[in-house]
Amino acid sequence: MKFQPADPDFASRVRASFARQGAMKLIGAELATVEPGHVVIELPYRADLTQQHGFVHGGMTAMIADSAAGYAAFTLFPADSSILTVEFKINLVAPADGERLVASARVKKTGRTLTICEFEVAAVKHGRSTVCALGLQTLIHLAGRPDTPEMRPAGRGVQGG
Amino acid sequence: MKFQPADPDFASRVRASFARQGAMKLIGAELATVEPGHVVIELPYRADLTQQHGFVHGGMTAMIADSAAGYAAFTLFPADSSILTVEFKINLVAPADGERLVASARVKKTGRTLTICEFEVAAVKHGRSTVCALGLQTLIHLAGRPDTPEMRPAGRGVQGG
Amino acid sequence: MKFQPADPDFASRVRASFARQGAMKLIGAELATVEPGHVVIELPYRADLTQQHGFVHGGMTAMIADSAAGYAAFTLFPADSSILTVEFKINLVAPADGERLVASARVKKTGRTLTICEFEVAAVKHGRSTVCALGLQTLIHLAGRPDTPEMRPAGRGVQGG
Amino acid sequence: MKFQPADPDFASRVRASFARQGAMKLIGAELATVEPGHVVIELPYRADLTQQHGFVHGGMTAMIADSAAGYAAFTLFPADSSILTVEFKINLVAPADGERLVASARVKKTGRTLTICEFEVAAVKHGRSTVCALGLQTLIHLAGRPDTPEMRPAGRGVQGG
Repeated sequence: MKFQPADPDFASRVRASFARQGAMKLIGAELATVEPGHVVIELPYRADLTQQHGFVHGGMTAMIADSAAGYAAFTLFPADSSILTVEFKINLVAPADGERLVASARVKKTGRTLTICEFEVAAVKHGRSTVCALGLQTLIHLAGRPDTPEMRPAGRGVQGG
Repeated sequence: MKFQPADPDFASRVRASFARQGAMKLIGAELATVEPGHVVIELPYRADLTQQHGFVHGGMTAMIADSAAGYAAFTLFPADSSILTVEFKINLVAPADGERLVASARVKKTGRTLTICEFEVAAVKHGRSTVCALGLQTLIHLAGRPDTPEMRPAGRGVQGG
Repeated sequence: MKFQPADPDFASRVRASFARQGAMKLIGAELATVEPGHVVIELPYRADLTQQHGFVHGGMTAMIADSAAGYAAFTLFPADSSILTVEFKINLVAPADGERLVASARVKKTGRTLTICEFEVAAVKHGRSTVCALGLQTLIHLAGRPDTPEMRPAGRGVQGG
Repeated sequence: MKFQPADPDFASRVRASFARQGAMKLIGAELATVEPGHVVIELPYRADLTQQHGFVHGGMTAMIADSAAGYAAFTLFPADSSILTVEFKINLVAPADGERLVASARVKKTGRTLTICEFEVAAVKHGRSTVCALGLQTLIHLAGRPDTPEMRPAGRGVQGG
């Protein structure tokens, strides 16, 4: 699908917002690709990201997928708007076993209020990529609410304001 | 629902496994309750757990919910078994705004192969608790595979071994 | 949770809308309970509702759960509004084996735009009830669009209008 | 993805099973495509399949998607096995407005126990196709249990037997 971003400056807006996410910094996630309707986030392996078997925790996989989908939606909206995750569903289909995880999200449908993204996370090991997670995410667009630290959303789309 | 754990020592087994999760340590999550079919994990607020608006990242919320559900299922199985997440779905229904998040998971149905848990995450602010996430999770039971670092699952339930 | 419906006439509005659903009539579903934030739909067993093993088809289970959740949300909104399903997730946890299915849905969170419901479907056999499905559903509220056959929504919440 | 079916006779096995589904007959669904790991089911519009606004009911959309995903998984397994739906998640992204719905499901990952499918449902109107639903489904494989009416599964994968 081809998308026309409402804000030509979308990429720097996404990068600035990503840089404000303490969580992404904590886990060492990197913004790899920012295109209209498509964002890729990478997560290099670290021992402190793992679950009890030594693989990257499923919650880490979900976290980078959630961020990638949110920013994929964010690329398409005007400069004065915010995006919040309504819900997502993730299937963990293989162990997150590799030197890095690559979460790729794409907008599948966008509307005035809601946007639907799909995502896929792959584990890259010795140069070979294996899909380890698949998912679908619903996001809500808050018009007229710039994505800044000062913003205090009245809710993640369910409480209005 | 009342559950009878197969292993009387289930609580120490859960605590030992939780302690091996680098991810839980990194984010500062604490195991608060371990009962048959029911586990609670708490996450005190830290600035490095946040998304771009200053609330705790939805992926953090998902991560503690995922772990709580996994361990809720784990309480019911024999000592020589492992549990892996097949998939989960989470609705983020309010901002994770508070001094701490409390993820509570309960087993709803358990079988020879699969277990279904539901979870709820609340944000506690000035002593008042607000539900910020709801979800459902499917887990798979791997019999005869102790939950140790040496374990190398051939997959998260989809590849067998 | 206690809810205050915006329209005192909510029950007759729900019953009239249900009566317009050709699908509910085709499968023989009945509206059993209509309370603020809570709706129950029942489906008596018929051989023409089954899958290949002779149990009621999982899609039938999903259909009555979807309708029950939609109407649970609908009870809380003004007379001039509509509700559309954004998405749902359902776990089929036991065969739908019984003389009737009972789908019970409850509103868990409601906001200006979105409402989240949870549902449970039980199969009743020889007077004994067994949970056969669990789920979570997201719905969108369209203000100022009465729920009538003339209404032509531009979309199920993702396209606006 | 390319798949090698375990049973060369998979297509006739799928068609025979589909023919035993009372539910598919009731709603008028047709099996359009049966390939290894890929099944398409079509549903011509009928007034008795609709919800209150005159569009095909979301539960109908879910029902054909569920069946398509189940049979997509079923194509890959030996003749003496059954497939049951564990769970699915569906986003209804546009009204099911058209002369027919087309549900297309593909296997994304298959293992000894679980199979993950994705599906997409389109509404075809005046020859133009619009995606109206997207989803992900988890299925469980029951080895050594032929898919016949005599089969009485102890459960949909969560109770074992």
